[in-house]
Amino acid sequence: MSKLHWEDFQPGAVAVYGPRLVTREEIVAFAAEFDPQPMHLDEAAARATLLGGLGASGWHSCCLLMRMIADGFILESSSMGGPGVEEVRWLAPLRPGTRIRIRSTVVDKRASNSRPEMGMVKFQFEMLDETDVILTTLGTTLMFGRREPGARP
Amino acid sequence: MSKLHWEDFQPGAVAVYGPRLVTREEIVAFAAEFDPQPMHLDEAAARATLLGGLGASGWHSCCLLMRMIADGFILESSSMGGPGVEEVRWLAPLRPGTRIRIRSTVVDKRASNSRPEMGMVKFQFEMLDETDVILTTLGTTLMFGRREPGARP
Repeated sequence: MSKLHWEDFQPGAVAVYGPRLVTREEIVAFAAEFDPQPMHLDEAAARATLLGGLGASGWHSCCLLMRMIADGFILESSSMGGPGVEEVRWLAPLRPGTRIRIRSTVVDKRASNSRPEMGMVKFQFEMLDETDVILTTLGTTLMFGRREPGARP
Repeated sequence: MSKLHWEDFQPGAVAVYGPRLVTREEIVAFAAEFDPQPMHLDEAAARATLLGGLGASGWHSCCLLMRMIADGFILESSSMGGPGVEEVRWLAPLRPGTRIRIRSTVVDKRASNSRPEMGMVKFQFEMLDETDVILTTLGTTLMFGRREPGARP
């Protein structure tokens, strides 16, 4: 019973995962598959865009964040997935060669009304670069199994 | 000047893109890279989860939607990207072998206060399966170049 359960998430708790180096090659490969706009594919074309140079697709940032929280704690937890995403903000470009970290803050938690074996945890995730500039924020509620189903939280 | 510009998006306009067949192989490959939770990787493990069987990562759904709207109209437009996502809801699992379509609705539009060459268009996107069940909804505001910068809309 060493896995993280719903009971183990405390509002206000902060954790940081990473770093992970994001390469030009993976930025371009992701864009070619899922978001083939010039600013994510080609340095020269990107210079003429709002990004002012090559930057990762915002969806790539979301996917990298997902992988880093998966490795960080989700895969060691009783995760039951999530119903969606409350908000994503792409605040600054994710450039090739950046070493990103994810800062995770537990915002709130509540028991599920319909499923006594489940609880919800609301997170705010931030992707940071090496100088702590926030590149992306992502607010979402995740579902976790409870160690003591139906017990008063 | 045949590209779609901000002026060309009309609130209430609906379009449908696709279909695209989503294979088991791509669901598992995406999950292995970005969201390696059992319900996205392995049929037997997935049966014991809330998904009740193998289903794509919600992030995979977002990325497929992005690619389908890119091919559908973004790449033929004066797209300047987007500042984020207002809401994503994963309403029903995306199963292997599903032929998905994307329904796009223009919800609202406005000129940019700070950039006369740019305008914002708010979209509601829905991913549908073959029987028109809505699998995912995604609300987002995208930025487009204007054909007549600064003109009264």
